Amino acid sequence: MKKIQVGLLGCGTVGTGVAKLLVEKKELISSRAGMEIILKHAADIDLETDRGITFKKGVLTTDARAVINDPNIDIIVEMIGGTAIAREFIIDAMNKGKHVVTANKALLAAHGNQIFKYAMQKNLDLGYEASVGGCMPIIKSLRESLVSNNIHSMTGILNGTCNYILSKITQDHSTFEQALAEAKAKGFAEADPTLDVEGFDTAHKLAIIGALAYGTTINLEDIYVEGISRITPLDITFAEQFGYRIKLLAISKKKENSFEARIHPTMIPLNNLIANVEGSLNAVTVTGDAVGDMMLYGHGAGMMPTASAVVSDVVDIARNIISGDIGRIPGLSFQPDKIKSIPVMPIADLETHYYFRFSAQDRPGVLSKISGVLGDHDISLKSVIQKGRKAKGPVPLIMLTHLAREANVMKALDKLSGFDVISDRPMVIRIEDNNLTH
Amino acid sequence: MKKIQVGLLGCGTVGTGVAKLLVEKKELISSRAGMEIILKHAADIDLETDRGITFKKGVLTTDARAVINDPNIDIIVEMIGGTAIAREFIIDAMNKGKHVVTANKALLAAHGNQIFKYAMQKNLDLGYEASVGGCMPIIKSLRESLVSNNIHSMTGILNGTCNYILSKITQDHSTFEQALAEAKAKGFAEADPTLDVEGFDTAHKLAIIGALAYGTTINLEDIYVEGISRITPLDITFAEQFGYRIKLLAISKKKENSFEARIHPTMIPLNNLIANVEGSLNAVTVTGDAVGDMMLYGHGAGMMPTASAVVSDVVDIARNIISGDIGRIPGLSFQPDKIKSIPVMPIADLETHYYFRFSAQDRPGVLSKISGVLGDHDISLKSVIQKGRKAKGPVPLIMLTHLAREANVMKALDKLSGFDVISDRPMVIRIEDNNLTH
Repeated sequence: MKKIQVGLLGCGTVGTGVAKLLVEKKELISSRAGMEIILKHAADIDLETDRGITFKKGVLTTDARAVINDPNIDIIVEMIGGTAIAREFIIDAMNKGKHVVTANKALLAAHGNQIFKYAMQKNLDLGYEASVGGCMPIIKSLRESLVSNNIHSMTGILNGTCNYILSKITQDHSTFEQALAEAKAKGFAEADPTLDVEGFDTAHKLAIIGALAYGTTINLEDIYVEGISRITPLDITFAEQFGYRIKLLAISKKKENSFEARIHPTMIPLNNLIANVEGSLNAVTVTGDAVGDMMLYGHGAGMMPTASAVVSDVVDIARNIISGDIGRIPGLSFQPDKIKSIPVMPIADLETHYYFRFSAQDRPGVLSKISGVLGDHDISLKSVIQKGRKAKGPVPLIMLTHLAREANVMKALDKLSGFDVISDRPMVIRIEDNNLTH
Repeated sequence: MKKIQVGLLGCGTVGTGVAKLLVEKKELISSRAGMEIILKHAADIDLETDRGITFKKGVLTTDARAVINDPNIDIIVEMIGGTAIAREFIIDAMNKGKHVVTANKALLAAHGNQIFKYAMQKNLDLGYEASVGGCMPIIKSLRESLVSNNIHSMTGILNGTCNYILSKITQDHSTFEQALAEAKAKGFAEADPTLDVEGFDTAHKLAIIGALAYGTTINLEDIYVEGISRITPLDITFAEQFGYRIKLLAISKKKENSFEARIHPTMIPLNNLIANVEGSLNAVTVTGDAVGDMMLYGHGAGMMPTASAVVSDVVDIARNIISGDIGRIPGLSFQPDKIKSIPVMPIADLETHYYFRFSAQDRPGVLSKISGVLGDHDISLKSVIQKGRKAKGPVPLIMLTHLAREANVMKALDKLSGFDVISDRPMVIRIEDNNLTH
């Protein structure tokens, strides 16, 4: 039986999952793939931790460079994370003629254009299914299954930490801080949760699938990113009254000469399938001109779901190595000479529905003043709710708009921020009523 | 640029969709696949219908055999359907050394074991993504993405006609007959809907994915099949009162030395994602030991979604032809020598929860009589609802059971059928409370 040898760099949570699958599922994998896939080395700085795997003698090592340099290793699996040493190791591995599998969305979002180009020049495969959506085969679907589709749009819950926190706030009416603390306690949030809760991790993922879908270079810088740390139980309650749920969505829509790419808390209709994706689960809807709406759903993170995606890449590449079919599927889905530089549409040009929550004095004339300024900026209102009655102190004033332009909304809110009857910065949440899976 | 030539047999709805994609998306496909895929011939007995495609001169033909015999054609796409002539053409095409793509689940469920074996002997690829779940990449996911997973179970809504009808009954409280009439009027049901509404089409699909998931030969005969034609608005209303929705599910669970494979109307919790799949949409949840629950959702039928899946197969095989990598993925996912004959568990051995709706005389002692017989057969009750009060005529008596054995349920119901206080055959609906995506 043919043999493919794998070197694993980084034996943390997902790396350990990959090692587990390669060691414990060796027979299963070979019964499907018809070849032996061998974990030759796993490198990590920590050799002491019990990972619950019985490695053969000599497999575990601290010497990552020796693994990269091992001439018998065909595929390097990079599970270190981050954009520094991981990048260096990937480039080194390619220089040694090794194919690479990674789950590193931060790296690909930042340096993917160069890394994919380098892989192509070296005639090497680069697998990255696990970089977006954990176990969900979103990369394979975009690169293979949807080959005859123009992709119109994508809408995704791509960060389990945020979805867990928002589900918690929705269910328990806890604050963001309480929900985050619980997410940390349960292992759904990192000690420093910024990358997740402020939307950056989701942006990394959208940068990757946006490129794949539309045939453009990866462009992380221009993606609009807004996290969930300002969402309050009050907003979630109002959203429900209007028939919406709040999710942190990655939204991308193809325009004529650009594409929307934005990450922000979004109100979506309760009866929408993606509104019902709860806890740390992920989902992504892809709308193509042939398939219509298609959705994938599953664990977007975690040891074994992510490892499963990594191993599917390892097997795909192993098949390519054995048949000599490297580059079978182009790295970014389109042939390199067909990839354009399609710009991201500036967020100021967005047209959508908005939810505003003002914290306003309950005085005569306040409503007319606010709606007057909005009207002056071409923003017309669909619904208004004013709750509570207070002689002193502010009350929440909720407004839902018809279609409005983001630039106008920002100008109107700037103008309103000067008004003494409005306390605090108003809460703004964008609404997606259409173009979502029902 | 390399060229692959395709011959299409059957230009009905999906065949026309395939032709459309191959003609109108030629450039898009080539920008991704890096090769030219040419629709050389499309054969159909009807050349008169305007299919809305501008075929090049000579492409359309009535002579299917000439297409099969054309030495320049690499891939035959069989879109005729049925198990007679389609089978003959597929075998003929293989005899001429042509790779085959089909969406023909009836054929694969009935004769797949021989057809896959024949393809392997001839070193030919056979693509069939479109045979299950329309555009959803369930075949690719099972064959490639889940390569390191032991599949524990699958739960699917795999027939759009049934799901449309059940959604209609749920929303409008119409009868099955009314909902079926509407499905026909809207093109969601065939003139003869038996194959769909009686569950056979769903069984064909489960036969295929069951084989793929567990590494067994296809076994259609032993799948338990029950359709939706007996479901009444009354059952749907009672289901809702208990927090359930009724769906026609394909359910498959791996047991130690067998696997469950059954198609029947099923009550599933309302908060379950798959319970919220409405209209003609399809969804399938796969539970693997590494990925946990993963769900795919999309259009399970229709011209363009199905054609999109067909074309993804064409491109996959075209890639294999060009690289000489035929048989890259084994037809039934496992290497031929690893495929076992795992038996389907007899339905009599099923253990699940049950919903019974008796139509019973509202007389003293009836409830105790029925529950007594059930108790004698080891069936204990979780809830009982008796609705209405009638001096004459039957009233519905609803019972939900704890876990019970199908064989015992059938024996108990046989016994009860002799009782004069019970009119009609009771309605029995199986309940799936666990092991489903939440």
